[in-house]
Amino acid sequence: MQISAGDLSVMLNGTVEGDTAVLVNTVAKIEEGKAGALSFLANTKYEEYVYTTLSSVVLVNRTFIPAKKINATLIRVDDAYVSFTFILEKFSNPLAISEGIESNVFIDPTALLGADVYLGFASYVSKNASIGDHSKIYPQVFIGQQAKIGKNCIIYPGVKIYHDCIIGDNCIIHAGAVIGSDGFGFAPLPDRSYKKIPQTGNVIVENNVEIGANTTIDRATMGSTIIRNGTKIDNLVQIAHNTDIGEHCILAGQVGIAGSTKLGKYSVLGGQVAISGHLVIAEGSQFGGQSGALASITEPNKKWFGSPAIELRNSLKMITVQRRLPELLSRIEALEKELLTIKKQ
Amino acid sequence: MQISAGDLSVMLNGTVEGDTAVLVNTVAKIEEGKAGALSFLANTKYEEYVYTTLSSVVLVNRTFIPAKKINATLIRVDDAYVSFTFILEKFSNPLAISEGIESNVFIDPTALLGADVYLGFASYVSKNASIGDHSKIYPQVFIGQQAKIGKNCIIYPGVKIYHDCIIGDNCIIHAGAVIGSDGFGFAPLPDRSYKKIPQTGNVIVENNVEIGANTTIDRATMGSTIIRNGTKIDNLVQIAHNTDIGEHCILAGQVGIAGSTKLGKYSVLGGQVAISGHLVIAEGSQFGGQSGALASITEPNKKWFGSPAIELRNSLKMITVQRRLPELLSRIEALEKELLTIKKQ
Amino acid sequence: MQISAGDLSVMLNGTVEGDTAVLVNTVAKIEEGKAGALSFLANTKYEEYVYTTLSSVVLVNRTFIPAKKINATLIRVDDAYVSFTFILEKFSNPLAISEGIESNVFIDPTALLGADVYLGFASYVSKNASIGDHSKIYPQVFIGQQAKIGKNCIIYPGVKIYHDCIIGDNCIIHAGAVIGSDGFGFAPLPDRSYKKIPQTGNVIVENNVEIGANTTIDRATMGSTIIRNGTKIDNLVQIAHNTDIGEHCILAGQVGIAGSTKLGKYSVLGGQVAISGHLVIAEGSQFGGQSGALASITEPNKKWFGSPAIELRNSLKMITVQRRLPELLSRIEALEKELLTIKKQ
Repeated sequence: MQISAGDLSVMLNGTVEGDTAVLVNTVAKIEEGKAGALSFLANTKYEEYVYTTLSSVVLVNRTFIPAKKINATLIRVDDAYVSFTFILEKFSNPLAISEGIESNVFIDPTALLGADVYLGFASYVSKNASIGDHSKIYPQVFIGQQAKIGKNCIIYPGVKIYHDCIIGDNCIIHAGAVIGSDGFGFAPLPDRSYKKIPQTGNVIVENNVEIGANTTIDRATMGSTIIRNGTKIDNLVQIAHNTDIGEHCILAGQVGIAGSTKLGKYSVLGGQVAISGHLVIAEGSQFGGQSGALASITEPNKKWFGSPAIELRNSLKMITVQRRLPELLSRIEALEKELLTIKKQ
Repeated sequence: MQISAGDLSVMLNGTVEGDTAVLVNTVAKIEEGKAGALSFLANTKYEEYVYTTLSSVVLVNRTFIPAKKINATLIRVDDAYVSFTFILEKFSNPLAISEGIESNVFIDPTALLGADVYLGFASYVSKNASIGDHSKIYPQVFIGQQAKIGKNCIIYPGVKIYHDCIIGDNCIIHAGAVIGSDGFGFAPLPDRSYKKIPQTGNVIVENNVEIGANTTIDRATMGSTIIRNGTKIDNLVQIAHNTDIGEHCILAGQVGIAGSTKLGKYSVLGGQVAISGHLVIAEGSQFGGQSGALASITEPNKKWFGSPAIELRNSLKMITVQRRLPELLSRIEALEKELLTIKKQ
Repeated sequence: MQISAGDLSVMLNGTVEGDTAVLVNTVAKIEEGKAGALSFLANTKYEEYVYTTLSSVVLVNRTFIPAKKINATLIRVDDAYVSFTFILEKFSNPLAISEGIESNVFIDPTALLGADVYLGFASYVSKNASIGDHSKIYPQVFIGQQAKIGKNCIIYPGVKIYHDCIIGDNCIIHAGAVIGSDGFGFAPLPDRSYKKIPQTGNVIVENNVEIGANTTIDRATMGSTIIRNGTKIDNLVQIAHNTDIGEHCILAGQVGIAGSTKLGKYSVLGGQVAISGHLVIAEGSQFGGQSGALASITEPNKKWFGSPAIELRNSLKMITVQRRLPELLSRIEALEKELLTIKKQ
């Protein structure tokens, strides 16, 4: 594919600064630019590269004000990152299409497969399970009894979906993810051993959800563990039983959410964040990486940090002083000494 | 299934307060109660709901003293949580039974399968491996050479058990868990590359152990990594080589135990807890979520918190003062100023 | 296998102290020694056992100076740990060799398999994928379109390698690991939902890399996520898109590296360490367990600790004072009181 800056600009509803005739035939990160490549600048951390990039064309936000001369042709758009993703799709190498029912699959006679389903080799579809139209189930996937997969889903190799779980439409589940394993519930017995609590509920994943590789989402003890519409979950995330993850949340890698917690919509959790069980987290809450929430949060749209987490701005102030603790100790000791001298006088 | 409060009470050795004739036909969480449902109250966090629940019957502990009027019929029992789990099993929808040897399995001629074993589609049983009576091996499981699975086990889809590993009786292993991968051992060489240390040991999982989805337990360098009787391990937990996890421990999601550490029996580890290598942790130790143990613990039955972990009660005091650090700095500065004024006089 | 201390010493280029004729026929940890066993002492934490071990022969470093009498025959070598690993290989029970193409595999006609490849049952090799000579692919593995596996690799059961990813020679990938899942990239839209950024790049794993069980490595948005030569990665590690992990790094269990970060060669990351995105970490950086790096590191070969991480020596000083915070608060209050008294006078 080859396209001019001018044609790109029309496609993206942008405005060109520079050579409208210059051609691009590939995409590149701005710091790894080369002639003929299209790059973008969205994160200001990377601004320095826009002045030196070898890329022929760079997408920038309309609001961007250059501090120096730029050699590349600029295309100004409303959101350089979003525009770039549209282009990225056009330049990506298409894969051979996987379709139809491959050999060596297990499909229970009671299972229902929609139109145009791809079912990969060595996959297993249990009794009364169903798969919606146009969904792609890669090899080595397990779909349990009565489980339902919606339409237009992509289920990557080796995903395991336990019985009774429900996956909505347009969901993507990456390799190795496990949906519907038993919640971690045990009642202590008088002899100090534990009795397993049966986990009789399920997992409901609504529409437009993406779930990362090797992430685990446990079924509810009763009722449902719910992942609501549009939420995106990264790799190796642990979602415990009976949690309710609101719409359009972002959960980065290795996050852990303990049982029965409700996470408000539009929340954003950095990597390795942990939320304790039985909490209610207000919508729009943001947690920095490795933070840990031990208490419910009632005020929405706040930023939190630390373990245990407090408000980010207070946390940063605290951390600054914390690093001076050895010095503060010395100053306290000096004060005590001086005061002693004064008292002796 | 439909049963009266009176019949339930007899079954649970309880006492009824209210209408012994009221019928229940389902179970529900107390905060999501409805007519005809049975709920329970064990965690006092949920006490408020007992006064407003729409459930017809609520199981409570004998010691529970209501603060207000309750509409539901109560059944008092010794342990409401444990009693509820017995009922839960009765009300859960039974799945179609998986049994026999499904198609497309690999069973080495030297492998031994006990009576009444279920072996799912696309599973693989290696040379000299064995599976005990009544065990259920779901699809896509791998069982390595000389590995032994005990009786009455449930091995969910996609579990991988490496060679020589031993799983006891009545164990449950959830989807995607890996038992017996190589311990992480490398010797640094003079050229700063690393030489792999062969991991020639195995993993021994004793009886009545439950292992969560995508959890990993590494084989020992020599000897055995051991998970002792009755221990329950949640999802995405990492157990390194040569560790020894005592009986009846609870390891919540994303816990990590480094190599050669011995964890005393009855220990309870919250989510994302990390224990360093080569430590000995006294029995009954409890760690709050995200805590990290850097040193051995000799005194049993203590609570620990923080990273690095200290005793919980000291940790909580420390955290309280820590949050006031910016204020403490100001007070130190004020003291210094005042002292200077005094000295000038 | 049975061998004398004298013969072992010749094999290891060592020197014997004690009985050169004593025979060993097994290996054992020094604290679990028995007659006829060979043990080693490298970590000084275990020195006490060298005086009491029942093992017949113990490998020690040439520099080791015993504090008490030792009963076992010693063999002094340059590096007791490395020498021991050579012996360990000799004493480990060889497994039955897995070779050839097992039944029920899927091999696309366009795929290329090298000489002497083992391809296990229920594995899947996609269009245009290739596997190098002498590589062993265990059962239930998925290899995507155009993916390339080098020579002499071991790919354990259930590993999933997405399209276009490249694995070098002599790599070991443990069960359940996922290579090449989509990077976690979403652009926020005005309606607060998220648009998926296509992840059009790949993962390149260079030579001599080991990757632990259930570890996940995401493909790049553009270009490549790179794991460089000789690096060793433990279980349940998360490596985000566009990261560049330098040569001969050690990443312990449950480490998480966020997107676009460059980790310098020879870095060592303890368990559960997190590194934020878009950072550059100088070579030879070492992070203690559970540390979190929020900023780039320019000075090489330093030790870091804490979350957020600071230099280890400063962190340890800080932690020491931190634990005394309740006491420091009391001392500040006492000072204020005394000063008030003085001022009143």
